[in-house]
Amino acid sequence: MTTDFTLEELQSATRNHGMPLEALAYTTTPVGMHYVLTHFDTPRVDPEAWRLEVDGRVARALCLSLEEVRSRPRVSQQVTLECAGNGRARLTPRPRSQPWLDEAVGTGEWTGTPLGPLLQEAGLLDEAREVLFTGLDRGEQGEIVQWYQRALSAADSLRPEVLLAYEMNGVPLPPQHGFPLRLIVPGWYGMTQVKWLHRITVLDQPFWGYQQNVFYRIARDEDDPGVQLTRMYPRALMVPPGIPVFETRERLLSLGHQRLQGRAWSGWGGIIRVEVSTDAGQHWQLAALEPPAAPHAWQAWSLDWEAGEGRHELLCRATDAAGNAQPLEPQWNLKGVANNAVQRLVVQVRRDLDSSS
Amino acid sequence: MTTDFTLEELQSATRNHGMPLEALAYTTTPVGMHYVLTHFDTPRVDPEAWRLEVDGRVARALCLSLEEVRSRPRVSQQVTLECAGNGRARLTPRPRSQPWLDEAVGTGEWTGTPLGPLLQEAGLLDEAREVLFTGLDRGEQGEIVQWYQRALSAADSLRPEVLLAYEMNGVPLPPQHGFPLRLIVPGWYGMTQVKWLHRITVLDQPFWGYQQNVFYRIARDEDDPGVQLTRMYPRALMVPPGIPVFETRERLLSLGHQRLQGRAWSGWGGIIRVEVSTDAGQHWQLAALEPPAAPHAWQAWSLDWEAGEGRHELLCRATDAAGNAQPLEPQWNLKGVANNAVQRLVVQVRRDLDSSS
Repeated sequence: MTTDFTLEELQSATRNHGMPLEALAYTTTPVGMHYVLTHFDTPRVDPEAWRLEVDGRVARALCLSLEEVRSRPRVSQQVTLECAGNGRARLTPRPRSQPWLDEAVGTGEWTGTPLGPLLQEAGLLDEAREVLFTGLDRGEQGEIVQWYQRALSAADSLRPEVLLAYEMNGVPLPPQHGFPLRLIVPGWYGMTQVKWLHRITVLDQPFWGYQQNVFYRIARDEDDPGVQLTRMYPRALMVPPGIPVFETRERLLSLGHQRLQGRAWSGWGGIIRVEVSTDAGQHWQLAALEPPAAPHAWQAWSLDWEAGEGRHELLCRATDAAGNAQPLEPQWNLKGVANNAVQRLVVQVRRDLDSSS
Repeated sequence: MTTDFTLEELQSATRNHGMPLEALAYTTTPVGMHYVLTHFDTPRVDPEAWRLEVDGRVARALCLSLEEVRSRPRVSQQVTLECAGNGRARLTPRPRSQPWLDEAVGTGEWTGTPLGPLLQEAGLLDEAREVLFTGLDRGEQGEIVQWYQRALSAADSLRPEVLLAYEMNGVPLPPQHGFPLRLIVPGWYGMTQVKWLHRITVLDQPFWGYQQNVFYRIARDEDDPGVQLTRMYPRALMVPPGIPVFETRERLLSLGHQRLQGRAWSGWGGIIRVEVSTDAGQHWQLAALEPPAAPHAWQAWSLDWEAGEGRHELLCRATDAAGNAQPLEPQWNLKGVANNAVQRLVVQVRRDLDSSS
């Protein structure tokens, strides 16, 4: 693993932020602890002037105020979101972008109105193929000046769990999470969850855009068209046990009984198995696994461990109902996306720490 | 400026987070955009079991529930907080700790009860010299296992603006900002603002602690006892104009009129002057400066600028009523604290950008 991080990477890392892993203790991640990745700037939106436009290949274009969106049928669901770039900083050579380690995740209680009925009200024409979502965030990436844009197939757009969300954890969306309205597509990586949404355009042909066709792909090299990212691959993370060393983030534990615990999720189906190793991967044990609190939310796991004195390397890995499992080593790709290699955590078990640590 | 950031620095940068500078547009920083620096882990506190202990050299030790703290006289004040390490990543050689650039700042609306009357109720004994504040966050730093602790002189503790805060921006403290109770000492750097506060101990001699006597000092080298940090030195920051380039965070602007704006603050008195340079420091202009919204909150400034085509380096600098001004170049010290060198922002003014950018 290379460690020569650049100023450009640091600039991204101090702006965006991960979920401190101790926040895995919360079923719903508090605002400010949930991960945030903003490609450009967080726009400041006047909710009075804001409108949601629905146009393109529809029978009736719509233009809705925030009050009109909020007066539609209201649904709340707990959804785990993860950045597609989570794990990027562990790749060698390292693709240059936001340098996440393991922490680009969070679970919010998202409240909004289902997208499908709104599209049905507008009336998709027969030739409708994709639905394009445009945010109010604008900047240059890959030498292209752009509004942030992502598209879904018409069929995916009509899935019942897809929401236009205006609240997070029971309060209006914070600015950094997309105020006043964002898309929530449960199970999909974060790049899909368009923030500061203000336009929905129904297209009769596939959308081409930087964030769709250039960046968020699993590709070997520049010449490989690769595969578009959609759903999250499985990952398990552990609440770092004991207390941290500030400088290294290694963990110090007292001797004896420890309950190791964490969360696991996948966009491809429920998690069916979480395994934990306390000896750097030589042996694995099955963790106890709870059902998810909601269909698209992470699942809690735990394992009791008798911690002996000395240094231990703790690992955890998840397998989902579709048969996807986490690799032990990172799988490199050009943009550094979807690296769901297992988490590795170094702990020092020390006789001199009292049990309150 | 060196740019070989280490994995340890990146780990800190992805956990802690700065205020994205576009949030300078808000008088009160939204939760989740305010900077956060946590030395150890964010504790998860049960508010029912939590108590505030007041003990040591007092006539009557106190033990208060959260409801008892909340039922005391209630005060709200807008306060600008800044991490003492802001600017550390711009020093050469770079002291190893949280690698902030310019963004470790924020202004909250803090609500709580004044500390002074509570200390008076406990009754400071004649020999009282300092008041020690202990948080529930614990870890190892500088090879010392410690609870996070900071002390103030008895006189500073009794200042009327010093608060025990239980709300931020009108809601209970978010976990990462110190739930259920934190200290707010307006004007002082962030290390003073003890989070997850649970014990206040009145001492008859000066406190010695890692965070007081080792880390948060301005010192030349390990042998220099140096000077303890207290109040924030002045700083002005600019809302980055135009739109960003994702990879470099440089700014792209359209040709013509721009209103440059930002905020400035100091813990030593009001800001009396903000100057702006649009030519890398060759010439300076006085910005229009607003009074602060509250005695310890930042002040808005603005300057109109006709942006000509090409590359420009924008700078801003503040001077406070006590005569402190920002240096043009960083002033190195051992721990990388209090580096308030002026912000420098590179913008590319381009004829081909439409004015909506």
